Amino acid sequence: MTIQLYDTTLRDGAQREGISFSVEDKIKIARKLDDLGIHFVEGGWPGANPKDTEFFQRMRGIPLSSSILVAFGSTRHADTPVENDPNIRSLLESGAKTVTLVGKGSARHVTKILKTSLEENLAMIADSILFLKSKGLTVFFDAEHYFDGYKKDAEYSLRTIQCAAGAGAECIILCDTNGGSLPPEVAAIIEASKACRAPIGIHVHNDSELAVANTLAAVTAGAIQVQGTINGYGERCGNANLCSIIPALQLKMGLDCIGPERLARLTEVSRYISEVANLPPDSHLPYVGASAFGHKAGLHISAMVKSEKSYQHIDPSLIGNTSRLIVSELAGTNTVIHKARELGLDFASQKEEAKRILKQIKSLESRGFTYDHAEASFELLLHRAEPGYHPPFELVDFMVIVEKHRRTPTITENGMLSEAMVKVKVGQDIYHTAAEGNGPVNALDEALRKALRQFYPDLAIVKLIDYKVRILEESEGTEAKVRVLIESSDGEREWRTVGSSTNIIEASWIALADSMEYWLLKRIGSKMSF
Amino acid sequence: MTIQLYDTTLRDGAQREGISFSVEDKIKIARKLDDLGIHFVEGGWPGANPKDTEFFQRMRGIPLSSSILVAFGSTRHADTPVENDPNIRSLLESGAKTVTLVGKGSARHVTKILKTSLEENLAMIADSILFLKSKGLTVFFDAEHYFDGYKKDAEYSLRTIQCAAGAGAECIILCDTNGGSLPPEVAAIIEASKACRAPIGIHVHNDSELAVANTLAAVTAGAIQVQGTINGYGERCGNANLCSIIPALQLKMGLDCIGPERLARLTEVSRYISEVANLPPDSHLPYVGASAFGHKAGLHISAMVKSEKSYQHIDPSLIGNTSRLIVSELAGTNTVIHKARELGLDFASQKEEAKRILKQIKSLESRGFTYDHAEASFELLLHRAEPGYHPPFELVDFMVIVEKHRRTPTITENGMLSEAMVKVKVGQDIYHTAAEGNGPVNALDEALRKALRQFYPDLAIVKLIDYKVRILEESEGTEAKVRVLIESSDGEREWRTVGSSTNIIEASWIALADSMEYWLLKRIGSKMSF
Repeated sequence: MTIQLYDTTLRDGAQREGISFSVEDKIKIARKLDDLGIHFVEGGWPGANPKDTEFFQRMRGIPLSSSILVAFGSTRHADTPVENDPNIRSLLESGAKTVTLVGKGSARHVTKILKTSLEENLAMIADSILFLKSKGLTVFFDAEHYFDGYKKDAEYSLRTIQCAAGAGAECIILCDTNGGSLPPEVAAIIEASKACRAPIGIHVHNDSELAVANTLAAVTAGAIQVQGTINGYGERCGNANLCSIIPALQLKMGLDCIGPERLARLTEVSRYISEVANLPPDSHLPYVGASAFGHKAGLHISAMVKSEKSYQHIDPSLIGNTSRLIVSELAGTNTVIHKARELGLDFASQKEEAKRILKQIKSLESRGFTYDHAEASFELLLHRAEPGYHPPFELVDFMVIVEKHRRTPTITENGMLSEAMVKVKVGQDIYHTAAEGNGPVNALDEALRKALRQFYPDLAIVKLIDYKVRILEESEGTEAKVRVLIESSDGEREWRTVGSSTNIIEASWIALADSMEYWLLKRIGSKMSF
Repeated sequence: MTIQLYDTTLRDGAQREGISFSVEDKIKIARKLDDLGIHFVEGGWPGANPKDTEFFQRMRGIPLSSSILVAFGSTRHADTPVENDPNIRSLLESGAKTVTLVGKGSARHVTKILKTSLEENLAMIADSILFLKSKGLTVFFDAEHYFDGYKKDAEYSLRTIQCAAGAGAECIILCDTNGGSLPPEVAAIIEASKACRAPIGIHVHNDSELAVANTLAAVTAGAIQVQGTINGYGERCGNANLCSIIPALQLKMGLDCIGPERLARLTEVSRYISEVANLPPDSHLPYVGASAFGHKAGLHISAMVKSEKSYQHIDPSLIGNTSRLIVSELAGTNTVIHKARELGLDFASQKEEAKRILKQIKSLESRGFTYDHAEASFELLLHRAEPGYHPPFELVDFMVIVEKHRRTPTITENGMLSEAMVKVKVGQDIYHTAAEGNGPVNALDEALRKALRQFYPDLAIVKLIDYKVRILEESEGTEAKVRVLIESSDGEREWRTVGSSTNIIEASWIALADSMEYWLLKRIGSKMSF
């Protein structure tokens, strides 16, 4: 059977701290969800904010091929005729043909929060659904706080959904709004709620780290619609994560959702949406994270080399992800050979060379370098071991000055000066230049770019997108080793480099230089002659 | 009944990409877990790497009050006498009185990965357990790949654990090593595995975003030991997250684990360990995340004001977390007054002054300062607001130079020079001096101490014991804001200070100066006159 997927990234997902979608963002995401084959895309709450109203207007001109666009709103206000209710009118005006109405599914919330009578709440549910149905719309009903309500007063919660079903709601979605329920409770309450005789859906939050399990338990108990968000975005601890639910339903429970071809695009969709949300992709996300199939322990790696299935619960290509061997302290020669092969370099016939590189890696790691997160530096290391490798530039000298002159007696960023001078050699030419920055590393970055742009003007498109500092052996205080990880992008690809030293400036310098060397290597190749 | 908690943050948790604990880090974490009342703390794999061997040596001198320290290792190698096996010997040499042995619980893994016979695997399990038991150790058995193995060949998987139970393993831990199982499968397999007649434990990974649910399902089915990590750290998508499991067991399932008082420290422990791991705390973590009880939606906030329970599944104070609304100015002022009173300062009669301080704190926080972890800087802030406060010194100017001159073509720490000059005012005297260091911050630290020791020779006993750097808004690259946290000690007490700036040198300077000012203030008081 087919489970209906209902995405609320654009409404509930946007409640996550730090997310603020523009109308353009919302349109991009709606189209992406349409490509993925999500059955219902909840676009927002028209009337509640102007952005959502505009979004629905704009979407009238943008047909979706597989998704139905849904507008969200609440049941009419207490003691208000439904046809005059501004919420309900906004839903009609949105142009959406399917709407989801949220109403209270808990007696406590009716009396304590809504401060109206239990009977009026039932009337609000019935009136709102009947009215929208009379206008030709398909109506879903979200029973808010249903599970918590049911646990306190099962009879009243059941009455709310019976009332919605009686008024003609096409699906009744039971909500674990506070995310506190356990899977056996969800299963039992779904089972009992089938008494409403309408199709049941499930909408849960992740406050107990159980949103995926609760959703799957609901489906097993008979729910046919699943609500969630991409990457589990949502208020507090997030909503149920569709990126984990869809593969579980399809690959593990044998239920149809979006078919195998679209499933293979899930990883891409997850990353695309984190990009649009301007949140760094969470590399530890199940199924779709960059680390989800990354293997670090030596024991695991040697088993993975023997059999791909050893430490993977599914074939990552089914959801468009890939496995990755992570180079670390525990790695052996095989890891180096395998990793080199992934990069198109052949060290299998040169075991001695691979051993030498491994020794070099271990020595660098003991000095604080780490290649877990710095594939580009690792690749450079392999290239540098190849005969005839010519680096695109060489660093000669640098000097950085940071100076503070007293201006004001309080803490301030005024009165600071950071300057860097660098000397770089390309072929036989030496270029000596200087730049200012808003810190010593930024000044060095600016000066190095300025020097290299003389030779490689294209380098202007390379941007640093992430800069991380880790103090190693922190107990050494200011004498401790420092590791710098830099992520760079040229707008198409991203790559990561590492530097380590007791001197943060030198560690940054190494990672910066690797970043630029890597890009130049990819851009212009390694066999340049000057 | 009491569920045994077994923490593997120090071994399995350290497999997370980006984590690399030093021995000092491991000791700090072990002590923190002991404080929390975790029953078993797995310290690492002695023999597998020198760091873990050193850790167990060091821990001999550090008694734990509620936790038992456990060493991890694998069963003997195939066709090797157990007493000659280096793994097994390292376990004995570790000095740990309880050990966990991992062995294959899957026929497929025995033949495909271990490449030995099914019978030899059983002998390896039995021999290893019997041998360690004969040396007086308590032995737990981790049945690796048990669930996947059981699904393919239940009989053989059962034989492995029956064999371990027969050899005297005190607990048999069934592992969902690849994290691919669903809760109903876990429950059914635990149920069937009770046939081994030994106590059962559960160890699962989060590859399907079901690790918490699988653990709870196992406990319901009869498991009495739960293995996991703080914050769910671990390879790929992580291990089962004890920070979500402990409150679920204790608050929702009515099972005893660590008691209510220690449970109220869970949030602090979660953040402490992320700090030691130098990973930004994940604010969206269930229960312990900074956003876990943070309310953004307008609808939710107005309901929260009516009733705290409206959008919270538990009272956050039970696990030491707090809910966050938009903090009213009055509430904020009260917090300042309350904190000041804790420090022996009275602002209750000076509401206006408290308001002014609150405004200053908010402004500093918006610039990257944080006082959660820097009590000394917070206290200085309050002292500085007192009338008649005289700082023990004032910073006038500084300059730092970092220079690299080319000596060798490879990455090296040679050829680097870091020098700092500082000008400090004490009373009417100005002292201008300079020092070298092995990095710019260390040079600044040395120069500042050198200057202050002229006036306060006692300052020589103050040592920096921890220095941490965090990049805020990492996407800004080298222009990002930097926060520096410093922990200092005079051998008796420890205190922590903070600095923030886009310039790492300035951020360090602020935190360094606060550290020394705080100590001088405690040592010589604030009402000095010069």
